[in-house]
Amino acid sequence: MIKAATLLLSCPDRPGLVATVTQRLYELGANITHADQHLDRQAQMFFQRIQFELPADAPAWPAIEAQLAPTLDALHMTWSLIPAERIKRTAILVSRQDHCLYDLLLRQRQGELRTIYTCVISNHPDTRPVAESFGLPFHHLPVTPETKAAQEAELLRLLRDYEVDLVVLARYMQILSGDFLARFGRPIINIHHSFLPAFSGERPYHRAYERGVKLIGATAHYVTEELDAGPIIEQDVTRTSHTDEIDDLIRKGRDLERLVLARAVRLHLQDRVLTYRNKTVVFG
Amino acid sequence: MIKAATLLLSCPDRPGLVATVTQRLYELGANITHADQHLDRQAQMFFQRIQFELPADAPAWPAIEAQLAPTLDALHMTWSLIPAERIKRTAILVSRQDHCLYDLLLRQRQGELRTIYTCVISNHPDTRPVAESFGLPFHHLPVTPETKAAQEAELLRLLRDYEVDLVVLARYMQILSGDFLARFGRPIINIHHSFLPAFSGERPYHRAYERGVKLIGATAHYVTEELDAGPIIEQDVTRTSHTDEIDDLIRKGRDLERLVLARAVRLHLQDRVLTYRNKTVVFG
Amino acid sequence: MIKAATLLLSCPDRPGLVATVTQRLYELGANITHADQHLDRQAQMFFQRIQFELPADAPAWPAIEAQLAPTLDALHMTWSLIPAERIKRTAILVSRQDHCLYDLLLRQRQGELRTIYTCVISNHPDTRPVAESFGLPFHHLPVTPETKAAQEAELLRLLRDYEVDLVVLARYMQILSGDFLARFGRPIINIHHSFLPAFSGERPYHRAYERGVKLIGATAHYVTEELDAGPIIEQDVTRTSHTDEIDDLIRKGRDLERLVLARAVRLHLQDRVLTYRNKTVVFG
Amino acid sequence: MIKAATLLLSCPDRPGLVATVTQRLYELGANITHADQHLDRQAQMFFQRIQFELPADAPAWPAIEAQLAPTLDALHMTWSLIPAERIKRTAILVSRQDHCLYDLLLRQRQGELRTIYTCVISNHPDTRPVAESFGLPFHHLPVTPETKAAQEAELLRLLRDYEVDLVVLARYMQILSGDFLARFGRPIINIHHSFLPAFSGERPYHRAYERGVKLIGATAHYVTEELDAGPIIEQDVTRTSHTDEIDDLIRKGRDLERLVLARAVRLHLQDRVLTYRNKTVVFG
Repeated sequence: MIKAATLLLSCPDRPGLVATVTQRLYELGANITHADQHLDRQAQMFFQRIQFELPADAPAWPAIEAQLAPTLDALHMTWSLIPAERIKRTAILVSRQDHCLYDLLLRQRQGELRTIYTCVISNHPDTRPVAESFGLPFHHLPVTPETKAAQEAELLRLLRDYEVDLVVLARYMQILSGDFLARFGRPIINIHHSFLPAFSGERPYHRAYERGVKLIGATAHYVTEELDAGPIIEQDVTRTSHTDEIDDLIRKGRDLERLVLARAVRLHLQDRVLTYRNKTVVFG
Repeated sequence: MIKAATLLLSCPDRPGLVATVTQRLYELGANITHADQHLDRQAQMFFQRIQFELPADAPAWPAIEAQLAPTLDALHMTWSLIPAERIKRTAILVSRQDHCLYDLLLRQRQGELRTIYTCVISNHPDTRPVAESFGLPFHHLPVTPETKAAQEAELLRLLRDYEVDLVVLARYMQILSGDFLARFGRPIINIHHSFLPAFSGERPYHRAYERGVKLIGATAHYVTEELDAGPIIEQDVTRTSHTDEIDDLIRKGRDLERLVLARAVRLHLQDRVLTYRNKTVVFG
Repeated sequence: MIKAATLLLSCPDRPGLVATVTQRLYELGANITHADQHLDRQAQMFFQRIQFELPADAPAWPAIEAQLAPTLDALHMTWSLIPAERIKRTAILVSRQDHCLYDLLLRQRQGELRTIYTCVISNHPDTRPVAESFGLPFHHLPVTPETKAAQEAELLRLLRDYEVDLVVLARYMQILSGDFLARFGRPIINIHHSFLPAFSGERPYHRAYERGVKLIGATAHYVTEELDAGPIIEQDVTRTSHTDEIDDLIRKGRDLERLVLARAVRLHLQDRVLTYRNKTVVFG
Repeated sequence: MIKAATLLLSCPDRPGLVATVTQRLYELGANITHADQHLDRQAQMFFQRIQFELPADAPAWPAIEAQLAPTLDALHMTWSLIPAERIKRTAILVSRQDHCLYDLLLRQRQGELRTIYTCVISNHPDTRPVAESFGLPFHHLPVTPETKAAQEAELLRLLRDYEVDLVVLARYMQILSGDFLARFGRPIINIHHSFLPAFSGERPYHRAYERGVKLIGATAHYVTEELDAGPIIEQDVTRTSHTDEIDDLIRKGRDLERLVLARAVRLHLQDRVLTYRNKTVVFG
């Protein structure tokens, strides 16, 4: 039996960072099984992701953290230690379309996404049968401009009750308020059905059709207060042509949305994504 | 010996278009070797491209045109007949960077692009050796805000003297005025180094870097008065990541620019591109 | 109300084919809404796919066929007329893995695949709940080398009872005998988890891992007696690297298998695929 | 002024490897600017690539090597230290086709490939003007089955005289003998015009056409005695269809060959490729 964890850290660059951290881990008895690092030369910022293992009889994680803290804090690092046995709890928000929802549910069952789904929440009742067929609680939270504040309060209450670590907007067609985002304070991943920054906002497939683009895209990003402007985690595109009508773009787009969102969620669940300056470092 | 031609046509849709045109061609002794068509259901517009062959002893092309005209005009078609022996005359405009220029020159020599290059024109002297090593006249037309009108007049004079059918902007970093475009009145293909409509205008790689996109793109389009807003002929993208600095984006982008521009120019030279409503029908 | 159909035809090439066929359709009152054609210059074979519409009061399809037959037969054409109201009946064969099965079921429900699923048949009981959750009959036909002949006889009986037009092998890990194929006599589409002709046969992901390829692929093809050697309908690939272990190849491959199989089945259901010389013409 | 170098190493896996190496580098005053590592769990082998910098007044590289050797040798590492100022010397071998040759020459001039081209060698005289227009010596070494041994001896003599570190076969259509490979003993990169292991050997585009594949590929690999079977560095594919004749496959393939070969050569020149078990680890 082995104890495994991931250490994520970032700090202003300076010589000796790698040596200091790896040496300290080694002193604690850790075997580094994988390490990635990145130096942003413009920002002069250093980022690192270290996967390591400890013997089964090593101290508990809080003790390990306490042993690491002096070294990491002395280097002014922002850091977090994520034990492998800690499984993230996810809530899926969705509106009417169910293709991303199905995809996320099936991939987790398949073993591709290491998470516990806590519930499915929607502003429409349509996807209740899907959620329930996977044994998940479904919450219908309808919303109108007048009830938006109350709906978000209820949403927040649910997410807290379920102790949710991650929210995935799997084609949830409502904009979350800055107030809600601040109160929730945890990561939210959205899938936008265009190649951002092109066609941010509404009806991107219709606008792509009007513009006559030869590729359409999808973008998974962390949600920030500014619409469709948060740090991008993953993007992809597929070819289109003059023969594609809007319905064809929507159909082709569904495949993109599924794939791009699933990749982004997987990367996040594996603690491979660090954000800074509204961008991401994705350790692949 | 055989005479071959391409017939391009478009008109409002109505029943019997295909039958009428193909029947008329058949009556003239034509053998259709390839035909493509497209119906835009939104616009209710019909587009067709027909390649056909006639016996060597068939009448001259003007006579064939005269025989086709009554049928096509009666259907209110916009049409053009392009004999295969007619080779388009192209001028390449370039600023300092030579990668697209080299690519276009080598592909024509290789037989991929069926065109006669008439000359290379630049607002900088840097690419003169490249042009001359391929035996092409080089014209240095420097430009400043003050001399822009005079430079465009000189440019127009050159294009007319060379009887140019097509202008390719192979990384020509100047904006052509609406007045120039109207006077020249022939197609101009530009390569823009982004996935339009994202990052139109200046310094797209720098802005892509700032935004943290996970793909960069290139777009070949016909030039219209509105900057980077003309009908798109071809686009493509390539993956990037946080490890790519701006110089890496520029390097990766060069490959995209070369490929996308060459494909677009080839499609145009083969009379495969029809434009309408600021979009293209590309018969592949 | 309108009657629509697709006409597929092929024959040795000769002048006037397009004009003759389109003229005949026009005489019958047809409006051609889309037409594609292909001339294989090596084989000197002509292929065409025509979508057309008739007024609602046009004769029944057998009468239309009788009216077309003299013209088409005189040109020695192999042809078939497929009325739009005729929906193909499909059986899905699967072994233990359910990702392609789910994908096909969801896409049909979504409206992407225009077919009637008649049943799911498997040599293992695992996917029974999936089939039943979509309201489909499930047949468990276990097979051993000794019972293979009997199992195939039972399989054939089922396919005939269900009046199946198309069989999709959605990761069915058994080889169908030549005798079975001859008796069934209708199209069977298989998804093979490699970029054929590389890694035909067993365990392609393991062999791809051993060889150290930088891309893995999937191939959808019509089944013929020779294993993995039938006409290819669609293929695609995805990037891999030294960091991918066999399980990663299998995971990435599932996405490819789903996408490639779904595209091939859709193309077939839309009567866009013609086969000759062990290759396909795919009218996109 | 700074001294920079890359350290490549591999060894059987064991705990503490990263810490030991980075600690030793730190003791020598090195600042690690980038590090990549890979653990092959099947082979239980560890691979690492470390880029580091030393102050300008650090000892000369042989002294640094001597200081590192005890640590690295004690861990049974295979390792090499490549100072950044050491630029690899490359010879390009080519037959008649010049597209990869031009591409490699232009990319180096553009600054994409950090190498010194020593000469161009061919079994045909056709590309002499290309080589000479880039100021490179050209050697015409014709070869027949009878003269192969003598030609390879002359080739070896030239490569030694030019002190060549790397040979690039840029569409050199001759098979190098095992004897030659053993005597030369340095890396040779070949571009094969198929997606290996499919269509290894002769006329891959013709065979791809016969098989009716929907994608064609290109593969860059290190040359070993077995034809087209060496460690793969890079591969890519592009779409084809029934409309592509063999000449179209060849044309599309040229773009693939150029891109894939250039990427592989760049990766090699940056010391990003380690080989083992006939596979590569490519640190991107």
